[in-house]
Amino acid sequence: MKKLINSPEDVVTEALQGMELAHPDLLKVHYHPHFITRAVPVKNKVAVISGGGSGHEPMHGGFVGRGMLDAACPGAVFTSPTPDQMEAATKAVAGEKGALLIVKNYTGDVMNFDLAAELVRAENIPIESVLINDDVAVEDSTWTAGRRGVGATVLAEKICGAAAEAGQSLAEVSALCQRVNGQARSMGMALTSCTVPHIGKPTFDLPADEMEIGVGIHGEPGRRRAKILPADGIVELLVDPILSDLPFKSGDEVLLFVNGLGGTPLIELYIVYRRAAQLLQKAGLKITRNLVGSYITSLEMAGTAITLLKLDSELTRLWDAPVLTPALRKGV
Amino acid sequence: MKKLINSPEDVVTEALQGMELAHPDLLKVHYHPHFITRAVPVKNKVAVISGGGSGHEPMHGGFVGRGMLDAACPGAVFTSPTPDQMEAATKAVAGEKGALLIVKNYTGDVMNFDLAAELVRAENIPIESVLINDDVAVEDSTWTAGRRGVGATVLAEKICGAAAEAGQSLAEVSALCQRVNGQARSMGMALTSCTVPHIGKPTFDLPADEMEIGVGIHGEPGRRRAKILPADGIVELLVDPILSDLPFKSGDEVLLFVNGLGGTPLIELYIVYRRAAQLLQKAGLKITRNLVGSYITSLEMAGTAITLLKLDSELTRLWDAPVLTPALRKGV
Repeated sequence: MKKLINSPEDVVTEALQGMELAHPDLLKVHYHPHFITRAVPVKNKVAVISGGGSGHEPMHGGFVGRGMLDAACPGAVFTSPTPDQMEAATKAVAGEKGALLIVKNYTGDVMNFDLAAELVRAENIPIESVLINDDVAVEDSTWTAGRRGVGATVLAEKICGAAAEAGQSLAEVSALCQRVNGQARSMGMALTSCTVPHIGKPTFDLPADEMEIGVGIHGEPGRRRAKILPADGIVELLVDPILSDLPFKSGDEVLLFVNGLGGTPLIELYIVYRRAAQLLQKAGLKITRNLVGSYITSLEMAGTAITLLKLDSELTRLWDAPVLTPALRKGV
Repeated sequence: MKKLINSPEDVVTEALQGMELAHPDLLKVHYHPHFITRAVPVKNKVAVISGGGSGHEPMHGGFVGRGMLDAACPGAVFTSPTPDQMEAATKAVAGEKGALLIVKNYTGDVMNFDLAAELVRAENIPIESVLINDDVAVEDSTWTAGRRGVGATVLAEKICGAAAEAGQSLAEVSALCQRVNGQARSMGMALTSCTVPHIGKPTFDLPADEMEIGVGIHGEPGRRRAKILPADGIVELLVDPILSDLPFKSGDEVLLFVNGLGGTPLIELYIVYRRAAQLLQKAGLKITRNLVGSYITSLEMAGTAITLLKLDSELTRLWDAPVLTPALRKGV
């Protein structure tokens, strides 16, 4: 296992310590239970909170800051955070306007966020949860009933963060989050597996000439194994199911998000972006916003995922709003 | 070779096309010869230009934009751009105040940038070149006489870009670039090799339990092979030679840049940052600015590089100035 880590059991805590040392102006890291808040919490607005297993950095901790998340709860690698983490994080940042929990659809996350929401509700903090389930690859999979939540999470966190910052109510931010999820579709693929530190061997075996189409962000099986294709062919295998699922249609304005899974360098992501943009243009879609980079990773997995969000004027305006986090910043 | 590419000979052009499609608000890509300029060139200032082999993205094209570069020349993968590229780029962006070429110290780059400077000077455009040679790992190496130019390049491009934007003269921006280079030191290490697309096999073989300490950004040999250590031990092997080289001394204010080489995910970079910050604090240094991410890559190589820049009030102010590029943005 070739990784820049110390012992597997210290990976999450030490990475959090690194984040705290690197971004004291933006973040505060709390330990036992572990959660990340803004350096200076803002309580006169809806708190937007997310979390999930670690190993997907910068998601979610890298999105804590002005215009995006108020708090993030990192679990162990590829493992849901516990209800007490989420409860503590929510209490630390939620004010009278309450909190929105953005939950990726994995069975453990859903269960623990539900428990946390109950604990918080019992203390009279208004709280809503929205499930993200944008992955069109498979209906059920290893750790998920229904579709998995992937790249739309990043977009929902940005857009809902902007709405909360602008003073929208919990009901409004929650409805907005559902709208983002409803208008977003994603699919990913892997060229290589990743290795979970405490397991020490690759999550799956993939022959040198094969790829996994529709892979999950923990290495869950996708639709099928296939012989590796040139990038343009791979991109078609991701874009076609996305387009037909919503369905997106000619004239739609969209945000195109090309994501790297952790081990794929930027030069390749731009080659992916090129073909994806060409295919969307051919389908009559107008790409009015985009995001290219490794924002939701699967440790060091090589591969890419494409997310498409149908925009409207409100979503576009909220996407453009200022944001100041370790991983995403503009207008500030 | 597992890569998201089409044919090896199209990698650079297609990645440029992807960049152009993704960032039309920021960049314009010119072809034959290939170079990247700002979408709207600004000619009433010193033009800051860089370039080098491709495979190090986002460097340099991702740093073109307001407050940083005016133009970038991408060569083939790990191959110097040609003098005609640099000449065309310089003519496209340089006005009366002239142009600064920021050149990483690799023999091919130095030779071709020198030729380009001569061609441009013959047309009465004032031009200066500054060589970046911050890598303390080795004195001479595969493609370099003297020390290699690595992470300080990113810092010099940001700082000189800000100075040019603020109206400094060519002599001033050039002196500033030399100062940044003189006050910066770097060293890197690799856990794995990378594979150059048109070669199709790893640049070097590294056993499963070994690492290359002092590796170059094209996979050039470093100081030595060693058994892999825990991250904290690896970071010490990088930080100690950096500290003793300048030398940095207690009380110095520094910028700490932890760079990923392309295949290393962010969670590991924060573990590296943690230890580096601890070591610098122990040495009495004050880390007042930092940068964590994959900004100068070696295709999909797994590994990290650390750059330390001694700051003063002018460098700090220029580092903090607004920048708006695909890969680095703040204050805008």
